[in-house]
Amino acid sequence: MSNTTPKKPAGSSEFREYHTPTSGLFFRTGRVLCSRSSAFQKIEAFNHDFFGTVLFLDGLVQTTEKDEFYYHEMLVHPALACHPAPERVLIIGGGDGGALKQVLLHPVKHVTLVEIDPQVIEVSREYFPWLKACLKDKRAELVVADGNEFMAQSQRLFDIILVDSSDPVGPSAVLHQKGFFRHLKKRLNPGGVAACQSGSLLLHAPTFRAKSKFLKDIFRVARFYTGPVPTYPGGIWVYNFLSDAVDPLDIKRKPAAGLGYYNADVHRAAFSLPNNLKKLIG
Amino acid sequence: MSNTTPKKPAGSSEFREYHTPTSGLFFRTGRVLCSRSSAFQKIEAFNHDFFGTVLFLDGLVQTTEKDEFYYHEMLVHPALACHPAPERVLIIGGGDGGALKQVLLHPVKHVTLVEIDPQVIEVSREYFPWLKACLKDKRAELVVADGNEFMAQSQRLFDIILVDSSDPVGPSAVLHQKGFFRHLKKRLNPGGVAACQSGSLLLHAPTFRAKSKFLKDIFRVARFYTGPVPTYPGGIWVYNFLSDAVDPLDIKRKPAAGLGYYNADVHRAAFSLPNNLKKLIG
Repeated sequence: MSNTTPKKPAGSSEFREYHTPTSGLFFRTGRVLCSRSSAFQKIEAFNHDFFGTVLFLDGLVQTTEKDEFYYHEMLVHPALACHPAPERVLIIGGGDGGALKQVLLHPVKHVTLVEIDPQVIEVSREYFPWLKACLKDKRAELVVADGNEFMAQSQRLFDIILVDSSDPVGPSAVLHQKGFFRHLKKRLNPGGVAACQSGSLLLHAPTFRAKSKFLKDIFRVARFYTGPVPTYPGGIWVYNFLSDAVDPLDIKRKPAAGLGYYNADVHRAAFSLPNNLKKLIG
Repeated sequence: MSNTTPKKPAGSSEFREYHTPTSGLFFRTGRVLCSRSSAFQKIEAFNHDFFGTVLFLDGLVQTTEKDEFYYHEMLVHPALACHPAPERVLIIGGGDGGALKQVLLHPVKHVTLVEIDPQVIEVSREYFPWLKACLKDKRAELVVADGNEFMAQSQRLFDIILVDSSDPVGPSAVLHQKGFFRHLKKRLNPGGVAACQSGSLLLHAPTFRAKSKFLKDIFRVARFYTGPVPTYPGGIWVYNFLSDAVDPLDIKRKPAAGLGYYNADVHRAAFSLPNNLKKLIG
C-alpha cells in the first residue's frame, strides 16, 4: 500500500499532523464533527474508526478517545501518588478534561482547571464523554483565563499543580519557560508537587537542556520522566516532576483501580531514563 | 495544516504505512532509492530529510536510520546482558543488520544471521551504513534460509537466540507461533536466553494472550517487556524474554558504551508492565 495514495471514499476528509515538514500521522474520516477557529487556535474534531473522537488544535493531535489515558495518567498520577494527602489541585490547560478526570479519581477536595480557550471546553464537553460529568463534580472549578497570567496573579496555594499545556513550540511556549515556573513555585504549598509535560523525545529534544537547567535552578527536585503516547509524535513523551521536598520514587498512596496504563511499577520505571535523554539533560 | 493536502513538490513520492485501514504514518521524499519486488515481499527504500534512509517491507516501516537503535538495542541487549558469557548467537530475520550490529558490540565468538530474503540484505548493504562493516566481521555468518525451517532442521546450539521477525500478522506469522518456539527451545544451550519481538501494544494486543500462554507452556521464564520505537505503530513495542534458567532482572554484564537508548536502568524498567498489557497476558 506504500508509495501510492488510495482514493478517498466520497465525503471523507484527511487530517494530518506534520511531525516534520515531510512526515507525520494521517487520519481519514467520513465524520467531521467540528472545524472552527477560536480567538486562540483552529479547533477540529472528528470521529475515527479506530481512535474514536479525535481533537486537533492548530493541526496537532491533542486528544483521542482511544489513547488519551496514556498521556493523562502519566501527567497526573505520579505527582498525586507522591503526596500524602493532596487536597487542592490546579490544572493549567487541559480543556479536554482528560487530566481533570484522572485527578477526580483521587480523594481531593478542590480542583481548579484554568483553560484559556472556552471553545476547547465547549467542543470537548460536546464530544468527549467524560468532560460533562467531570464538570458536574462539586470539587471541580472551571476558570477561563490565560494560564501564565493566572499563575502570575493568583494568591491561592495548591498541593498539586499540573501543567497540561500544548507543545513547547508555538502558542504554549510561555508555559515551558523560566518565568512561568518561578511563579508556579510560589503557588505550591509546602510539600507540594508539580508535574508538566515537556514534549516529544523525538522532536523537542533541543529544548530539554535549557529546561533542565532552569528547573534545577528553581526546584530542589526537578526530575524528568517518560511515558508512551501512541498518537503523539515519536510515541515517547517527556514529563517533569517538580518539588522542593518530595522524592518522586517515594510513592505515598495506592493508585486508583481501573487505570489503563499507570501502576506503581511503571511510575518507578518512568524515572529510569534512556541514554539519549540523560545525555540531553546533563 | 490539517484537513488539507498540501501539494507535493514535483518529483516527490509519498510513502504510507497504514496502521489501520484509515490511519498511519506518511513520509514524503524526493529521493527514492529502490522499489522492487523480491520473491517474498515488496522492498522499498528512500531517503528522508529527518529519518535518513528508510526501509519499507510490504508497506511497513522496517528500519529508519534515525530511530532503529530503539528497537534493535531493546531486542538485543536485555538477553545478552543476562548471560554471563554469551559465545554463540543466532539471529532469525534481521536482514537490515541492525540487530547484528548490536550483537557485535558484545565479546561473542560467533553470530549466525538467518535471513529469508537475499534482496533485503542486498538493499540494506547498499543503503544502511552499518551492514557492510558488520558482515566483514569475522564473527558474523550469513545464512540465506527460511528461519522457521532453519530452526526445525538445525542441530546447532546457541547461547542466545534473537527473533527479529516482521509483525505477528502477515508473512512472518509463523515466527510468532508455538511450533517455532518449540524448535527454538531445542536450539538453546543450557543457560541460554531468547528474545523476540511480539509487535505493537496498540495494534497486536489481540495476539498477546495466546502467545503468553504457549510461551509459558514452553519456557520456565517467559516474560514480556516493552520499549519505545518512534516509527513503529503506536510507538510502544512489545518483546519477550525466554529462558529456562535466567532471570531477566539479574543483569550479569555491563552494557556497551555509546548506546542511544539501553542502559541497566531501562532494562529493568522495561519489565514493569502497564495495566493494559498485564491484563492481556494474564
